[in-house]
Amino acid sequence: MSYVEELGIRAKKAERAIAGASTLQKDTALKAIADALIARKDEIIAENLVDLKRADENNMSQAMRDRLKLDEKRIAGIADGVRQLVSLKDPIGQVVDGFTRPNGLKITKVRVPIGVIGIIFESRPNVTVDAGALCLKAGNAVILKGGKEAINSNICLGKIMREAIETAGLPSDVIQVVESTSRDTTNELMKLTGYLDVLIPRGSAGLIKAVVNNATVPVIETGAGNCHVYVDESADLNMAVEITDNAKTQRPSVCNAIESLLVHQSVAETFLPMIAERFREHDVVIYGCPETVRILGNNIKSATEKEYATEFNDYIIAVKVVRNIDEAIEHISKYGTRHSECIVTKSYDSARKFQNEVDAAAVYVNASTRFTDGEVFGFGAEIGISTQKLHARGPMGLSELTSTKYLIDGDGQIRG
Amino acid sequence: MSYVEELGIRAKKAERAIAGASTLQKDTALKAIADALIARKDEIIAENLVDLKRADENNMSQAMRDRLKLDEKRIAGIADGVRQLVSLKDPIGQVVDGFTRPNGLKITKVRVPIGVIGIIFESRPNVTVDAGALCLKAGNAVILKGGKEAINSNICLGKIMREAIETAGLPSDVIQVVESTSRDTTNELMKLTGYLDVLIPRGSAGLIKAVVNNATVPVIETGAGNCHVYVDESADLNMAVEITDNAKTQRPSVCNAIESLLVHQSVAETFLPMIAERFREHDVVIYGCPETVRILGNNIKSATEKEYATEFNDYIIAVKVVRNIDEAIEHISKYGTRHSECIVTKSYDSARKFQNEVDAAAVYVNASTRFTDGEVFGFGAEIGISTQKLHARGPMGLSELTSTKYLIDGDGQIRG
Repeated sequence: MSYVEELGIRAKKAERAIAGASTLQKDTALKAIADALIARKDEIIAENLVDLKRADENNMSQAMRDRLKLDEKRIAGIADGVRQLVSLKDPIGQVVDGFTRPNGLKITKVRVPIGVIGIIFESRPNVTVDAGALCLKAGNAVILKGGKEAINSNICLGKIMREAIETAGLPSDVIQVVESTSRDTTNELMKLTGYLDVLIPRGSAGLIKAVVNNATVPVIETGAGNCHVYVDESADLNMAVEITDNAKTQRPSVCNAIESLLVHQSVAETFLPMIAERFREHDVVIYGCPETVRILGNNIKSATEKEYATEFNDYIIAVKVVRNIDEAIEHISKYGTRHSECIVTKSYDSARKFQNEVDAAAVYVNASTRFTDGEVFGFGAEIGISTQKLHARGPMGLSELTSTKYLIDGDGQIRG
Repeated sequence: MSYVEELGIRAKKAERAIAGASTLQKDTALKAIADALIARKDEIIAENLVDLKRADENNMSQAMRDRLKLDEKRIAGIADGVRQLVSLKDPIGQVVDGFTRPNGLKITKVRVPIGVIGIIFESRPNVTVDAGALCLKAGNAVILKGGKEAINSNICLGKIMREAIETAGLPSDVIQVVESTSRDTTNELMKLTGYLDVLIPRGSAGLIKAVVNNATVPVIETGAGNCHVYVDESADLNMAVEITDNAKTQRPSVCNAIESLLVHQSVAETFLPMIAERFREHDVVIYGCPETVRILGNNIKSATEKEYATEFNDYIIAVKVVRNIDEAIEHISKYGTRHSECIVTKSYDSARKFQNEVDAAAVYVNASTRFTDGEVFGFGAEIGISTQKLHARGPMGLSELTSTKYLIDGDGQIRG
C-alpha cells in the first residue's frame, strides 16, 4: 500500500467520528488548536526558520519569502482566524428544504459533511491551519498537501493541530498533512477514488490545470481571475476612476483584481486621460487598443490578444475602447475566466443587461471587483473562490464544504 | 477539428441564446416538441423498426428489446412527459439567497443555467427526449449520446426536436444528438474540457465507472444502488414484511430496489419465515448468512462477501442476521452505495441513530426505498439519481441542472 493510500484509509476512519461530532466538540477542538498554536509558537518559528534558510539558499524572491515567513504576530493572526470559526454557525444539520408528500411521507433535506476533502496548495503555510480548521468545523476529514518550500512549517503545524484535536476527544486523523514533497504524491491524490470525495487545488493556474486534467476524483476549480471593469456610456466618470483604480491597484496580486478595462467609445476621450493620470501614481503599465493609443499618446504600449488573455497579477492593465455594451460583454465572454466582472453605469437598462448576460461568479454594478471574498461576503471565512459551475460558484464558506441528504419519515408507505 | 469538438462548439454557440431565453420561449419550444413527436410518430416508428430489426439480428434479449421499442402509445407518453415540463416552475432567475453588507452592497444569489451538459446513456430512446427537454427547460444546451442499439431512433428523435426548437425561435443546437456510435466519441466527450460544464452518465455500473475514471470534465455519478432494509428489534413485523417485499419485488431492475435485508437477531426467528413465505410468491432467491440458513433451512443458499456486494437488479436477495443496529449500520457502510437505505422500527432512538449515522442520499424510516425518485419526491421530473456528494445528491430535478451567480449592486463602493 502506498503512503497516500494509507492517508486515505486513515481519513476514511476519522470521517465518521468527525461527521458525528457535536458542534461543542468541534468548537472545543478549534479552541484547543488556537491555544496550542500560541503556546507552541517557538516550535513553529524554529521549523519555519529551516524553510526560510532553504529559501535563502535557493534565492527565493523577497515577495515569496515574505509569504513563507511566520513570526509571533502572524501566528497570533492564524490562531485568531481559528477562534473566529468557533463563533460561526455550524452548517451541519441545517434543514435546507422539507415537505410532505400526498401519501404522508415527510421528506427533509439536511446538510451533512462532504466526507474526506483533499486540498493542494502552494507556499503559504497559514493555509494549512485555515483550511484544516474550516474542514473540521464543517465535519470533514481533510488531507492537506502544501508546497515543498513550506514543508517543515506545514509538518509542524499539522502535528500541533493533530495533538490538539486529540485533547478534544476526536481522532487526530481528522487533519492530516502530507509529509512528502514528491510530485508522485500529488498525482496519487488526484486519483484517490474511493477515499477522496473532493479535491480542491489552490494556487497557480498551472497547478489548477494539472489537477483538472489529471484528477479522477471530483475537483472544485478555484482562483483563476481575468476580471474586467466596463465603463458604460452613462457612467459617473469620477466613480469609474475610483472603482477602476481600486480594482486594479489596491492589491494587484489577487484573483479578484482586474486585468482589463473596457471603455465605451463615447466617454473614452474624457475618461482615459482621467484614469491614466490616476494610474501614474502606481506606475501602472497600460497596454491599449489603437483607439486608446490615439487618445493617450504613443507612450502607451499596444495591446494584443495575448494581453487581453493574461492574468497579470501586477501593476499592468490592458485597455480597450468598445463601440457599445454588447461588444464589452462579447469581449468578457471571450477572455474572462468567469470570476468577477463589473459595469460602471447610471443606466438601469445597461445594469440589468450586464448582470443578465455576463456569465461569471460575481457580476457587479458600480462596485469594485475586489469584494469577491468569503469574509467580505459575510461567510466568516473561505476555502477559496470557485470558478466552476458545479457544487459551488464564487466564494466558498462553510456551507460549500457540505453535502445534503434526504431523511424520509413514513408509517409503512410502500410504492404502488 | 473532430466531430465531437464541432458539437462542443455548436453547443457553446447555442448556450447563450437558451440561457437568455424567457420561460415563455422555452415552454413554446417544449410544446412544439411534444406536438411534433405526435405529428411525426410514423417517422419515429419507422426508424425504431430499423433498430428493432438489427436487435433481432443480434439476438437481443426480450427485456432489452422491449426497452428499445417505441409504439404509438409510448410516443404519446413521451410527448406527455414533455408537456408536463411546461407546467413546472422555471428554476432560472430564482433568488436563493440575498443580503446587504455593512457597506451597503446588496448581494443577491440567483439560479442560472449550468451551460452545456453532456449525457451518456444506454439503450432506451425515450431518454433522448426526456433528458433533452429537461436540460432545455433549465436553460442549458445539451449533447446526448445514446446507446448504439437505438441510434436510428435517437437520430430521428433528435431531428424532430431540433426542428421544433427552431419553430420556437431558438437555435436547434440547444439539443444535439451524437450521430456516431463509436467508443472514441464517448472518450472524446469525457475530455471535452472548455465545452462541457458537466457530463452525466446514466446506465450500467461499467459505463459509470469508465466515465468517472476517464473524464476530465466534471461528472455527476448516477445510479448504482446497493440498498438495504434493516428490520430493527422493535419493528412492526407486518409492516417490515410489506416494506421489504415492496422494496425488493415491486420493480427489482431499478436502482432504488433493495439487494440485501438485515434483521435484528431478536426478531429473526419470527420475521425470517414471514418474509420467506412472501418472497416465495415472487420466486425470490435468498442467499443467507449461517443464522438465516439455520432458521430457514438448508434450501437457502449461503451468502458470501460477493452476494452482499452485488447489485442483483433481479428477484434475488442477500440476508444477514445482525447482533444490533450498530452492526447493521456497519454493514451498510461497508457494502452500500450511498443511495437509499431503510430502517423499520418503532424506536425513536433507533430511528434517529439510523438517520444520523447512515451515509446515503436517502435514509428512510418505515417506508420503502422505492420512493427515491424525482417525480415521487415532487420534482416533476428527474435526470437521474446522484450517488455522489458534490453539487447534487439524490434525485436530480430542474434545480439540480442549474448553477448560481452573485449579483452585486453598489453605489461606488471600493475596498479599503
